Amino acid sequence: MKQKIAIDMDEVMADALGKLIRMYEEEYGKPVNMDRLRGNMLQDAIDPDHSHVIREYLFRKDFFRDLAVMPDSQAVIFELNRFYDVYIVTAAMEFPDSLGHKYAWLQEHFSFLNWQNFVFCGDKSIIRTDYMIDDLPRNLAVFSGESVIFTSPHNVEETRYRRVNNWQEVAAMFL
Amino acid sequence: MKQKIAIDMDEVMADALGKLIRMYEEEYGKPVNMDRLRGNMLQDAIDPDHSHVIREYLFRKDFFRDLAVMPDSQAVIFELNRFYDVYIVTAAMEFPDSLGHKYAWLQEHFSFLNWQNFVFCGDKSIIRTDYMIDDLPRNLAVFSGESVIFTSPHNVEETRYRRVNNWQEVAAMFL
Repeated sequence: MKQKIAIDMDEVMADALGKLIRMYEEEYGKPVNMDRLRGNMLQDAIDPDHSHVIREYLFRKDFFRDLAVMPDSQAVIFELNRFYDVYIVTAAMEFPDSLGHKYAWLQEHFSFLNWQNFVFCGDKSIIRTDYMIDDLPRNLAVFSGESVIFTSPHNVEETRYRRVNNWQEVAAMFL
Repeated sequence: MKQKIAIDMDEVMADALGKLIRMYEEEYGKPVNMDRLRGNMLQDAIDPDHSHVIREYLFRKDFFRDLAVMPDSQAVIFELNRFYDVYIVTAAMEFPDSLGHKYAWLQEHFSFLNWQNFVFCGDKSIIRTDYMIDDLPRNLAVFSGESVIFTSPHNVEETRYRRVNNWQEVAAMFL
């Protein structure tokens, strides 16, 4: 029986942060200070008067449909899918308008994956897989299997989990 | 820590079969023979020349939005939600157009539940809860906790799982 890997979407397969930064810089005409992103979510790294807009961007109807694919994620997940049961597990329920868009995004960019292996949830504590690759410590903290943290600026200070910095390091760990 | 219960939507919380029967009878003008539903899915209980339409009905864009609520499910789930962590786990991924409608249906009829406890998936083998209430033996067969089968005409011959015939029996078992 193959081992099962749960893989998060945003910040792991899909570059949500990159789009948020671009939207913010376009709207306010000032660059995000990348040093301040270290250990912080974007909303905590910008002018506090503007921090509410980040959440508004996430709730825009088509926010998740055209996110850029994280480098090497397609090739590595294609290989992982040969040797493991790969589940795409995303906490999408907070953004109900995103459900159809996330599905379409997965079909467009990861067409080799089966819909049977998509999981849109809220709380990841009920996921039973052997591994979980995620950028959010709060998801990894409630997971029962082996947690793997995927580097994102906000989590660089986190030391509780085995870390992968990019998809090449995921390949080196699992393949 | 509360125990966790996964509850299926179609045939358990939502009367999908009732709507399918009504649609079929309206389109073909002949009643479904209820005796033939015993141990069979609807598509296997009707004229074989028409059996393909059942799947077509399921794929219609708004099929899942206006399903009737199963008797007593609201009151019993309201009570369960006080004493357990209740997760609504539906294999919705086969019907991507249903995702938004299922979410809206849950918000309309089960507004006391939190989106954090909704799970839209394909394969239920990756669900980690203490109990699962479901009408489909194939979902219960891959579940790792205690399986409870909710009676639906197609599953009446199934003997592998503890059975509940209605929501009053769910209340008697869990409350």
